Amino acid sequence: MRIYDLIKKKRDGHELSKEEIIFFVHGYANDEISEYHAAAMLMAMFLNDLNERETVELTEAILTSGDQIDLSSIEGIKVDKHSTGGVGDTTTLIVGPLVASCGVPVAKMSGKGLGHTGGTLDKLESIEGFKINIEMDNFINLVNKHKIAVISQTKSVAPADKKIYLMRDLTATVDNMSLIASSVMSKKLASGADAILLDVKVGSGAFMKTLEDAKALAEEMVSIGKNMNRETIAVITDMDQPLGNAIGNALEVKEAIEVLKNEGPEDIKTLCIELASRMVVLGKKAENYEEARKMILNNLENGKALDKFREFVEIQGGNPAIVENLSLLPTANYHYIISANADGFITELKSEEIGIVAMMLGAGREKIDSKLDYSAGIILKKKVGDSVKKGEQIAELHYNDDRNLKVAIDRFNKAVTIKNVRPGNVELIKQIIE
Amino acid sequence: MRIYDLIKKKRDGHELSKEEIIFFVHGYANDEISEYHAAAMLMAMFLNDLNERETVELTEAILTSGDQIDLSSIEGIKVDKHSTGGVGDTTTLIVGPLVASCGVPVAKMSGKGLGHTGGTLDKLESIEGFKINIEMDNFINLVNKHKIAVISQTKSVAPADKKIYLMRDLTATVDNMSLIASSVMSKKLASGADAILLDVKVGSGAFMKTLEDAKALAEEMVSIGKNMNRETIAVITDMDQPLGNAIGNALEVKEAIEVLKNEGPEDIKTLCIELASRMVVLGKKAENYEEARKMILNNLENGKALDKFREFVEIQGGNPAIVENLSLLPTANYHYIISANADGFITELKSEEIGIVAMMLGAGREKIDSKLDYSAGIILKKKVGDSVKKGEQIAELHYNDDRNLKVAIDRFNKAVTIKNVRPGNVELIKQIIE
Repeated sequence: MRIYDLIKKKRDGHELSKEEIIFFVHGYANDEISEYHAAAMLMAMFLNDLNERETVELTEAILTSGDQIDLSSIEGIKVDKHSTGGVGDTTTLIVGPLVASCGVPVAKMSGKGLGHTGGTLDKLESIEGFKINIEMDNFINLVNKHKIAVISQTKSVAPADKKIYLMRDLTATVDNMSLIASSVMSKKLASGADAILLDVKVGSGAFMKTLEDAKALAEEMVSIGKNMNRETIAVITDMDQPLGNAIGNALEVKEAIEVLKNEGPEDIKTLCIELASRMVVLGKKAENYEEARKMILNNLENGKALDKFREFVEIQGGNPAIVENLSLLPTANYHYIISANADGFITELKSEEIGIVAMMLGAGREKIDSKLDYSAGIILKKKVGDSVKKGEQIAELHYNDDRNLKVAIDRFNKAVTIKNVRPGNVELIKQIIE
Repeated sequence: MRIYDLIKKKRDGHELSKEEIIFFVHGYANDEISEYHAAAMLMAMFLNDLNERETVELTEAILTSGDQIDLSSIEGIKVDKHSTGGVGDTTTLIVGPLVASCGVPVAKMSGKGLGHTGGTLDKLESIEGFKINIEMDNFINLVNKHKIAVISQTKSVAPADKKIYLMRDLTATVDNMSLIASSVMSKKLASGADAILLDVKVGSGAFMKTLEDAKALAEEMVSIGKNMNRETIAVITDMDQPLGNAIGNALEVKEAIEVLKNEGPEDIKTLCIELASRMVVLGKKAENYEEARKMILNNLENGKALDKFREFVEIQGGNPAIVENLSLLPTANYHYIISANADGFITELKSEEIGIVAMMLGAGREKIDSKLDYSAGIILKKKVGDSVKKGEQIAELHYNDDRNLKVAIDRFNKAVTIKNVRPGNVELIKQIIE
């Protein structure tokens, strides 16, 4: 087999066989196929598309390029949740303890944040003492005993994905449904879960800007999951404005604790209840969605979800006292207050821009090796649809380093729109694909 | 400007501006743009195509990546001829002296052969003593004095073309009209001619297999030439079977001399008269095609064309005695006779296959550094349309090294088809694009 012939085949719009896809993916992962060949192939795949079979086989080839985590020694149905990435999306910290408190084992592998989107690992590391590097044996023991543990994704999982993603990022071949879906799903599948819940974000702060695109991506990923014999459901949810009120690592941990106390912003709470209920069904701890939803609401009200969060922090070396005393979490020395420049209604809070502002304040990474300030970030005082008076607070910017402050303030102001007319209601949960 | 954005633009089917095309071509030529970026861009160009303006500007960018030869100190209108490559195509050796004998200056830069197609330089070097490395000043003096000289294309001409062509060859992005046309025309334009005659080959032994494709390519090239203010005409000619009877370097020199003696095979003679007449018109040494054709036929009959050839060989250091004594040219020690295996008519002589057989006998280069046997090659005794009796000679294979002989014989036999029905006449000159 020659890579030249495979590029030519895909260039001419023909299907690649399973063996040909494996030849390309494994060959590239093993440095046997050169970067320029990979670049040409990825552009041909991007422009001529992969069909459903090819997409499933691409996912499988990426999956088998590295180690597959064996979670079979964990009792019960392991359900994984994946979000396609958003701003202020701290759902994992809430949903994890929630479903674990219902008896569903949560054995989660997470990543760090990059650009305008945060990462679960960074949020957890903002808790003093929290350890994310745990040996696999110990990780499995923790999940068996406590129903929840979160570790850093190992480098040996889907190494082909890392190389392919980097090349796509360099050659403008990222935005293709099959390539995105296979990248996400290969890692999820390699992580060993039995069932997968996908939270596909749509809107200005998401990778998918339109509902149509989000649906297409969700369908591709659900199809891959089912083809690989994993029960898979996708929930398409709004990311036109940031989720909840907090953006930034420690700020989002605080918000997660508030939601687990059955307080906190309505939107993120609503979404977490939805996601957690679906996971409880997938984990077969409830007969149906309604029953699962009741269990979740109960455990939010009776404090069991919060207890599970405290237990989770403690077993991974973090200080459980933060749950009762939020001021033990890192706090920024400076706040800058953003005020409304007119009377009216908030009609727009551009998520991606706000995510970038948070990054500029120190909450996120511009590059892979950027240093984080766990305390930095943004607290939104108003969300889309709220009325404001001129001079009223819209948001607080939290920071220690004021290097980028002026640009950040300017950029934040441009991300907010105030108009005289009240906007229509935001539909948070748009569609379920199963 | 970032190459990423340019790849994305072309990926999405948008036009690239002149500045963007220059940024890509010159950046890649100067090693400022990486191979994987070039590979992705070329695949995007291949699949989304370039429009006429982009094709002209790509040609110009390749042209300006290196030196442009200044032939302005040569008197008269310099007319260059370019063939897209064929088997047994020795027209340059005939047409050059023919038009020079009519007063049109021929200042030709030629290349070596590769694969199944031969190169003019190799044919000339089969003449003992013939020198192709001449200083530019001396070259210009020779053309001014004798109206003809041929040198090796310098490396400083269109260096971007070499890099881009190599990458296209590696990544299956060769067969695109705009990319082919810009590659050919950038080199022609850099060589400094005032007018260009293109011989676009079509058929089994040519790059373009169908008349439709050949026409499209011819139109692209003529458009580029005109846009760059060079009078440009394309003649689309048959390459379904080899041209003339000889394939191989010294064998083709012999055939060229025969044609210049007003003998030799009809097809190659007809084509050379056509091409030479067009060049005389382009060089403004005749009012119209009919007048030019008369001049050419005259100089074939009165020996002036042959005299010019003898003069040309002598001024470049070759032995002019070969013209009177063809046996002074290299001769192979062994001949293998291919005979007809049935009565009937020759209906097919697959050019590319026959070119490969000649290469296997030593007449061509499999790789860029393969060593040539100038005496090796093939003499066809029959052409398409000829009737044969079983056992009658179809061809002679000339060789010194019998390493590949068995495979060559087998391959040659498969390239010949004999049927009971006389095939339709071959149309040698199919179309003029101007």
